[in-house]
Amino acid sequence: MEMPTPDLTILAKKPVLVARLKSVLPSDMVIHEEAETRAYECDALTAYKCPPLAAVLPGTTEEVAAVLAICHQMGVPVVPRGSGTSLAGGALPTADSVILGVARLNQVLETDFDNRIIRVQSGRTNLSVTGAVEEDGFFYAPDPSSQLACAIAGNVAMNSGGAHCLKYGVTTNNLLGVTLVTMDGQVMEIGGAHLDAAGYDLLGLICGSEGQLGVVTEATLRILPKPEGARPVLIGFEDNETAGACVADIIKAGVVPVAIEFMDRLCIKTTDKFANAGYPDCEALLIVEVEGSEAEINEQLGLILQIARKYDPVELRESKSAEESAKIWLGRKSAFGAVGQINDYMCLDGTIPVSSLPYVLRRIGEMSAEYGLQVGNVFHAGDGNMHPLILFDANKPGDLETCEAFGADILKLCVEVGGCLTGEHGVGIEKRDLMRAQFGPEDLEIQMQVKDVFDPAWLLNPSKVFPLAASATRRAVAA
Amino acid sequence: MEMPTPDLTILAKKPVLVARLKSVLPSDMVIHEEAETRAYECDALTAYKCPPLAAVLPGTTEEVAAVLAICHQMGVPVVPRGSGTSLAGGALPTADSVILGVARLNQVLETDFDNRIIRVQSGRTNLSVTGAVEEDGFFYAPDPSSQLACAIAGNVAMNSGGAHCLKYGVTTNNLLGVTLVTMDGQVMEIGGAHLDAAGYDLLGLICGSEGQLGVVTEATLRILPKPEGARPVLIGFEDNETAGACVADIIKAGVVPVAIEFMDRLCIKTTDKFANAGYPDCEALLIVEVEGSEAEINEQLGLILQIARKYDPVELRESKSAEESAKIWLGRKSAFGAVGQINDYMCLDGTIPVSSLPYVLRRIGEMSAEYGLQVGNVFHAGDGNMHPLILFDANKPGDLETCEAFGADILKLCVEVGGCLTGEHGVGIEKRDLMRAQFGPEDLEIQMQVKDVFDPAWLLNPSKVFPLAASATRRAVAA
Repeated sequence: MEMPTPDLTILAKKPVLVARLKSVLPSDMVIHEEAETRAYECDALTAYKCPPLAAVLPGTTEEVAAVLAICHQMGVPVVPRGSGTSLAGGALPTADSVILGVARLNQVLETDFDNRIIRVQSGRTNLSVTGAVEEDGFFYAPDPSSQLACAIAGNVAMNSGGAHCLKYGVTTNNLLGVTLVTMDGQVMEIGGAHLDAAGYDLLGLICGSEGQLGVVTEATLRILPKPEGARPVLIGFEDNETAGACVADIIKAGVVPVAIEFMDRLCIKTTDKFANAGYPDCEALLIVEVEGSEAEINEQLGLILQIARKYDPVELRESKSAEESAKIWLGRKSAFGAVGQINDYMCLDGTIPVSSLPYVLRRIGEMSAEYGLQVGNVFHAGDGNMHPLILFDANKPGDLETCEAFGADILKLCVEVGGCLTGEHGVGIEKRDLMRAQFGPEDLEIQMQVKDVFDPAWLLNPSKVFPLAASATRRAVAA
Repeated sequence: MEMPTPDLTILAKKPVLVARLKSVLPSDMVIHEEAETRAYECDALTAYKCPPLAAVLPGTTEEVAAVLAICHQMGVPVVPRGSGTSLAGGALPTADSVILGVARLNQVLETDFDNRIIRVQSGRTNLSVTGAVEEDGFFYAPDPSSQLACAIAGNVAMNSGGAHCLKYGVTTNNLLGVTLVTMDGQVMEIGGAHLDAAGYDLLGLICGSEGQLGVVTEATLRILPKPEGARPVLIGFEDNETAGACVADIIKAGVVPVAIEFMDRLCIKTTDKFANAGYPDCEALLIVEVEGSEAEINEQLGLILQIARKYDPVELRESKSAEESAKIWLGRKSAFGAVGQINDYMCLDGTIPVSSLPYVLRRIGEMSAEYGLQVGNVFHAGDGNMHPLILFDANKPGDLETCEAFGADILKLCVEVGGCLTGEHGVGIEKRDLMRAQFGPEDLEIQMQVKDVFDPAWLLNPSKVFPLAASATRRAVAA
């Protein structure tokens, strides 16, 4: 992966920059010693590393605005960072950029159960949003696997999803408003505790813009009442394609489970060993969860099992207790970690029309043989959001490159069948060159012009999302 | 309401313009005789009228592109028009503009039940989208009261909702992709039959942009399986505030009915007479509808009735048959028409946090006394989308102006309680000056810069959405 050349004139400004940043932040919140900046050299796409020029940890929206104003004046690029769990390199710094971490912005500002909203600072972790309201019987729906660690800031930047988004939608469906600081230090309120937006839907635009249009410091989120109950069922199959066909049939029938998760043999085995999840021994496994009252659960599960039986499942097992359900989900949510324990891997993220699942799963199997790299499949099948994990050996020369070429082919396949390069991980650096597979030059130009509006100097997370060659002249203006 | 002065140099170009338009369209699809252009002089905000310079009715995306390219070259503004049912003047022409009507673009291009999508041309009416799939057991969820007439193009432009959007979301939640023609005649494909967007969420931005960023010629829409059954219940109260409090309580409890509709005495009486809906005699009426299997319906209604009983309702009546349900909904959906038969009225559209319903309803009553104009309230209460109907006498000098001032005060009240100027009707000309009540100059500037990206010459529906003074210099460049 090509990395942009650092701007030497910016590197030369470091002493002045650090001094100015220390004038608006507590001194220990400006991190600039090389040993310390290493803590910010990568995110969860660990194949790429680069320590930033400095890192800052502002504690208020005003401090964020002050930091951005200084960097804007001095022409220094800024890379916003939530918890650094991006799998696409969205929070990877360049050597000439300042990491703006929102970790200290972790407070709950308001809970309003009458209107079912919570307002939080953006550095708060996803799971602790639910933590703040669960005693009152509520929860926040989007649940990325990294939810223990990942920040709302990153969820908004990447429009994150999760296993339970089939029913409740992804971040953009649960986000009502943000406080946004633009690169020149201006503070904007966008959206709020109401339906719709007057004028253009800037909130929809901000969500998923990968920290390129502004830094989100506060978010108003929809919270939902906890369902009365929920029950997962495990459905095992003899091959991936049959499992894919069963998913397509469930969706077609119009049942809306809360989640339909898919795992293939590699992931089942690895995860079961890691988390002791009690998964059956089979080629492909679906975890289908429904929720509601006991009567609703039984009715929905009845319909799902009726459909599943048509596909000759080798296993059909309903969870019998809350403990068993928790174990099933712990397994699924630790799948990436479990695979990571035994192998280097690259986690892809593409979406496809659900009816293409059987075909795409078969093609991935064929390509795996062609490239000579194993693939594990574990993903949100119900909404067609795939996460193939390509295994490679980081110590074997050329293996990473082969893996990247294989990954690119899988994502091109997603686009070919009418899908999309990303589901919930974003484009970051990982897929910026693949944007050309999805968009023509005019389409990219329009998107880049939208960035021009919010960040004319292209200082905010500038080397992401767009192919470096496409954004070169704009970034050159910045430098 | 101030109207922009027509540009005389554009008027002078009419003969050349008409000739050029006829070179790319069938001759009878270019309407330019004064008697005929009158058919396009207004939309459903009939207080304002102005015949356009010409009107064109292209039949393909290519014809739309050719028309736009010609108008772009000649510097002629274009006002896109769906079915002209806008209540905010969104399709009102100026004397120097060309109306681009999409009525002939009414075909179904593709139905895909496996992936639950339909692709239609944008002039197709809302109800006939459902018409194309209902035999197969599906429907298209957003259901504006004007659904028999209104076009998908207008639904996308205004991000339209409807009574049943409480459960299913508004247009933006059911729109997967569009074919968009920009003002210079370029054709773009945005979104598609998959989750999420790579890069920025331009689809979210296009939806609700009131025809100012491009002309939508095709749309890919999500279709849903028809529920097994549905049942409305009528709940009558002795005053508006109590009904509002009951709505807030239902929402707070986390039940999600398909619809919670509100009508006050004026609307109940008028509508009942008009549509013979069988409504009870009371001050305030809620129509709450739930759907699902018989067991699900009974369970949800049980909970709703339990909440309602705490507010001492004067009536609690479940629908007993499909015919009774149809009559109840026919009444609600003809409410605007029924009121229109007996009075001139202006229909407002604002949204508020649901918990503010009792306060806002009381304040509207007080303001009604202050202004000396009657108000009817009929609206989507469950998601806080209000539609006060202010009655006035169009033949009485000054009454329209009083009505507009009253309406502005109501919408400012919506913003004050943390709500928004629009729900589903858009800003149009009606609320462009009120945008200043919601947004500061910097916010408006950012929105206008987004329009600059898609339509640098400000030729597409230019006099809408933004205060005329705010957009003056940009529109001057266009002229």
